[in-house]
Amino acid sequence: MIIQLKNKIDSNELEAITKTLKEEHIKSNFVETQHNKYLVCFTKTEFDIRKFGHLPGVQDVHSVSDDYKLVSKKWKLNNSTIQLCDTITYTKEPIVMAGPCSVENEEQMEKTVSHLVKNNIKILRGGVFKPRSSPYAFRGLGIEGLKMMHSFCKPYDIKIVTEVMQVSQIEEMLPYVDVFQVGARNSQNFNLLDALGSVNKPVLLKRGVSGTIDELLQSAEYIFSKGNEKIMLCERGIRTFENSYRNTFDINAIQVLKEKSHLPVIADPSHGVGIRDHVSKLALASLVAGADGVIYEVHPSPEEALSDGYQTLNFEESDNLIRQIHNLRSFLNSN
Amino acid sequence: MIIQLKNKIDSNELEAITKTLKEEHIKSNFVETQHNKYLVCFTKTEFDIRKFGHLPGVQDVHSVSDDYKLVSKKWKLNNSTIQLCDTITYTKEPIVMAGPCSVENEEQMEKTVSHLVKNNIKILRGGVFKPRSSPYAFRGLGIEGLKMMHSFCKPYDIKIVTEVMQVSQIEEMLPYVDVFQVGARNSQNFNLLDALGSVNKPVLLKRGVSGTIDELLQSAEYIFSKGNEKIMLCERGIRTFENSYRNTFDINAIQVLKEKSHLPVIADPSHGVGIRDHVSKLALASLVAGADGVIYEVHPSPEEALSDGYQTLNFEESDNLIRQIHNLRSFLNSN
Amino acid sequence: MIIQLKNKIDSNELEAITKTLKEEHIKSNFVETQHNKYLVCFTKTEFDIRKFGHLPGVQDVHSVSDDYKLVSKKWKLNNSTIQLCDTITYTKEPIVMAGPCSVENEEQMEKTVSHLVKNNIKILRGGVFKPRSSPYAFRGLGIEGLKMMHSFCKPYDIKIVTEVMQVSQIEEMLPYVDVFQVGARNSQNFNLLDALGSVNKPVLLKRGVSGTIDELLQSAEYIFSKGNEKIMLCERGIRTFENSYRNTFDINAIQVLKEKSHLPVIADPSHGVGIRDHVSKLALASLVAGADGVIYEVHPSPEEALSDGYQTLNFEESDNLIRQIHNLRSFLNSN
Amino acid sequence: MIIQLKNKIDSNELEAITKTLKEEHIKSNFVETQHNKYLVCFTKTEFDIRKFGHLPGVQDVHSVSDDYKLVSKKWKLNNSTIQLCDTITYTKEPIVMAGPCSVENEEQMEKTVSHLVKNNIKILRGGVFKPRSSPYAFRGLGIEGLKMMHSFCKPYDIKIVTEVMQVSQIEEMLPYVDVFQVGARNSQNFNLLDALGSVNKPVLLKRGVSGTIDELLQSAEYIFSKGNEKIMLCERGIRTFENSYRNTFDINAIQVLKEKSHLPVIADPSHGVGIRDHVSKLALASLVAGADGVIYEVHPSPEEALSDGYQTLNFEESDNLIRQIHNLRSFLNSN
Repeated sequence: MIIQLKNKIDSNELEAITKTLKEEHIKSNFVETQHNKYLVCFTKTEFDIRKFGHLPGVQDVHSVSDDYKLVSKKWKLNNSTIQLCDTITYTKEPIVMAGPCSVENEEQMEKTVSHLVKNNIKILRGGVFKPRSSPYAFRGLGIEGLKMMHSFCKPYDIKIVTEVMQVSQIEEMLPYVDVFQVGARNSQNFNLLDALGSVNKPVLLKRGVSGTIDELLQSAEYIFSKGNEKIMLCERGIRTFENSYRNTFDINAIQVLKEKSHLPVIADPSHGVGIRDHVSKLALASLVAGADGVIYEVHPSPEEALSDGYQTLNFEESDNLIRQIHNLRSFLNSN
Repeated sequence: MIIQLKNKIDSNELEAITKTLKEEHIKSNFVETQHNKYLVCFTKTEFDIRKFGHLPGVQDVHSVSDDYKLVSKKWKLNNSTIQLCDTITYTKEPIVMAGPCSVENEEQMEKTVSHLVKNNIKILRGGVFKPRSSPYAFRGLGIEGLKMMHSFCKPYDIKIVTEVMQVSQIEEMLPYVDVFQVGARNSQNFNLLDALGSVNKPVLLKRGVSGTIDELLQSAEYIFSKGNEKIMLCERGIRTFENSYRNTFDINAIQVLKEKSHLPVIADPSHGVGIRDHVSKLALASLVAGADGVIYEVHPSPEEALSDGYQTLNFEESDNLIRQIHNLRSFLNSN
Repeated sequence: MIIQLKNKIDSNELEAITKTLKEEHIKSNFVETQHNKYLVCFTKTEFDIRKFGHLPGVQDVHSVSDDYKLVSKKWKLNNSTIQLCDTITYTKEPIVMAGPCSVENEEQMEKTVSHLVKNNIKILRGGVFKPRSSPYAFRGLGIEGLKMMHSFCKPYDIKIVTEVMQVSQIEEMLPYVDVFQVGARNSQNFNLLDALGSVNKPVLLKRGVSGTIDELLQSAEYIFSKGNEKIMLCERGIRTFENSYRNTFDINAIQVLKEKSHLPVIADPSHGVGIRDHVSKLALASLVAGADGVIYEVHPSPEEALSDGYQTLNFEESDNLIRQIHNLRSFLNSN
Repeated sequence: MIIQLKNKIDSNELEAITKTLKEEHIKSNFVETQHNKYLVCFTKTEFDIRKFGHLPGVQDVHSVSDDYKLVSKKWKLNNSTIQLCDTITYTKEPIVMAGPCSVENEEQMEKTVSHLVKNNIKILRGGVFKPRSSPYAFRGLGIEGLKMMHSFCKPYDIKIVTEVMQVSQIEEMLPYVDVFQVGARNSQNFNLLDALGSVNKPVLLKRGVSGTIDELLQSAEYIFSKGNEKIMLCERGIRTFENSYRNTFDINAIQVLKEKSHLPVIADPSHGVGIRDHVSKLALASLVAGADGVIYEVHPSPEEALSDGYQTLNFEESDNLIRQIHNLRSFLNSN
């Protein structure tokens, strides 16, 4: 059960509600986000929600029995939108985020930002803290890389999405990051999720490499229940028995996530298939399936990229994809 | 290595070629299909294919090193088309096959055929031999069901695709079937594949529930190498750890199959996700990803269907999907 | 619900029982096996089984709600034993079946039979109909191979377990086979299972490469419900994301199958791991986990085997394994 | 390539070696652990290792081409042993670690420690920082729980293994922990692995829920290459399509890990199957397969445990298991 509180609720009203809950032996968590106040309630038995609907300070009462609650569509039927800045509101149109796997050097950043500007793409992706299976692989330029990235984006008001790997990085990253990405390997790094719940910036939460849809929603619940409701879910392929490509993109997950949650869903076709030639069609198919946006890898010369080159588009392919996304949007709106 | 022979090759020429192969210690299989003659050759070492190119009776020589050969795109760059009848050639436009999971009764057949006719759909799917996990589940009407189905289709020249479960059924089914479907559980039933290699009707070959892409192509090779090159591959979802839907539709497989093979690829969104509300979008996404057609389940009243009702469209939903497929085709052709 | 009938039930009594069932709107299947007679009943609601307990001809009435019934442990608490011949009763002691993947030639058979005789192993495994992913791989010697195999076994009263791939092979195989093996790819070949239900010889039923435990039990139910209750279940590894070995041996399945079913469970460590060096320890671990026996591959010179050589023991390794199994049995009996 | 250095190497010798490496364009990492000094070298081409064997300060030169190097068995043929304290050396005999999923209260600790003392078990497991899929589940008593746990263990010299979830916890945990456990969800939390590389206490590294064997070894390489070679690998079950139990225990992994690495391998049968009745046999089977030890869950009253009760043994079951492990050890030593 979720009790949605009036934003102007006073402390006496809140106390009265929690007292009533205690009398009914219902445990509850108070949650305050950027936009709203809630009491998330836990009750093992069926409960008459009308008992609370009339209490002063209560906006609405919703019955939610899922393991995840605040992120569930059972109480919030409209899709959430996220205001990134004055000019970017997620889910009004397909969001496109593009950029290299890793931030490498100034030339790469300059060219990539130009490519985005030319194509009217507003969000740059680029890793500076890189989780790598091997300790000997390239692990990113770190915070200096982020600052450099930021210096190229700022003049054009390009927003930055980049991966954060641990709690202690958040503070130093904060001035330079617009969207914090949680990578697949950290999808159940609960300390990190908790910490991002206290940050007032959107979080792009990737599904774990073998994470279930329910686990992804519960991970999102971690962030939301700590106070940050600006969350985007990201399908990026799962691990299966098939190995003729990198990951098995779970296109079903897009629809199921949209059915179960009010949060936006972003597709990552680059990791989803891991083969450059197949990225563009997969991006388009994801949008047809209902994704609110795509994030993909693009690089001035993918063959020379320090990581993920085989799944990264070059600028010409990216130009083409953006044009197709634009056309597809018109088609979908009129059908 | 594949030696493509001239169709008018005489026996002396063929003998001369096989003699030369023997001298080079190369094992070969002679394959004659509806359209062509081939020698499939096995050689462990790299080989100079020019040695054979000039021999009388040889049309062309191709180097193919995959485990599958005749179905590989390495020697036949153009996509295969299948002439089903005067009016239906596969892969010229998105193929649509629709109908109930199981043939149940005359009323159901009559209504479904009318629905297809109204929407200009030319191929009816419907099972009469049903593989079921439990011996106590409904196992289909059998050959009588097929005859009944046929009697409703014939007046409108609607073609029939239906599943064959074992070799001994082929002969009695032959007069009534236009496309033999091999189900997921029989995807590696090699005796059945061999037998369908001798039939001059198209085969819709479903991927096994945990079949790899390579295994699917090798299963197709069984059919082709016995003489039947009218094969359609079908992606219908694979088994993974995720269980918030029936199967994980492997949309990556569509592109990878089109890259590796010249055979048409059909998507089965009904089994691919197993939830009615998600079937239509998945069908459209599959076409965007490159599928040559779709096969889906439709029933006059899905709630009462004897099998698979929860993943079956009703007529209204099917009308809508067909209209959207039509529009999407125009969009894809112009982009 | 299962109504176990008296073996000497007469037709009037049976008629009276089925009449009563009909009055209660309960569908039932009559099943007669080598040893018993049953009515398998289907009822959607809870039912008072005492209503039938007193009827003439009724031995016992059991409540079973699983998808599988006759193979369930819910009604038959004791483990089933299978009398293969006067000297072999399954599950009294660890069963060992050993032999090559494929029957290849007389020398191989002679040596292998000698190896078994020397080690007091009573059952030879050896394939003559080989399911192979590729149509160009060695597909076995066929029925002549089986006859040859039989000629070497007969003098020593060695029993034969070999794979049957389709219904039409059963009859010709029958005189030479002691245990019919159903391979992983045919684990849901329901026509084959039906047909083996009418044969009075034990069936070794392998789990499908991605078959669930429930599906395996339902496949066994096919055989049992057609009249053959001499069934052994076989765990042989499943397909997962891991590929540093051939299959993931599901050791959990052994205990879960023993908990859910009264049928014997056999482990196949050769396919279960697919690496020769690891076969023996896996065989022993399976027995500790509760398997009733093991089936493994052994060959006079594994390096030269026509199939599966990399997972096949040589005679020395096999001697060692048998000795260890013998010692382990003593240990397990005394602990 | 790994260059093992003499422990008494002086800085001039080291400099000379790295200079020679540079001349050959070989990148290298200097690693110093509790016991040894190494240069881990990266070279894309085959290399003549004899060039370095004779240099002053070089103990030995090994060719290792795996993605993981220091943990590979290719250079260190003997199994590693870990001296936990004067009385405990890993891998000399089966290690047993037992205790509750979560530390809950003083009574639970007192009873559990008594149970261990009685059975001569020297290591207590017990979680105080609990990673949970849901933010609303019990997340452990935290550092105070650890201190309490420690106060009960100290009088009997019982060692403590407990999970660490993030870098910032290490320092406060250090005085109370004998073995740091890295949980399945943190198996690729590379910041955490790096940090544990600087700690002079053993690490029990669990395999990720869908982690490959190679990924596990690369995660171990993270720890080793930062200076801590006291690592135990832990197989705890993987995620597959099967869901009649909690995880699929990958018994193959035990042998494959022992083949590929010199590190000890511990089995976790509690998580490996997740069903109390099956834990003990799985523990024994793991030891037969070659595991160096087991870690399992035991609780004074499993039914009332705050977490994982359904897979936790009670004291009587635990008594039995320990006795069987003891007997099995004697058996294995004599066979």
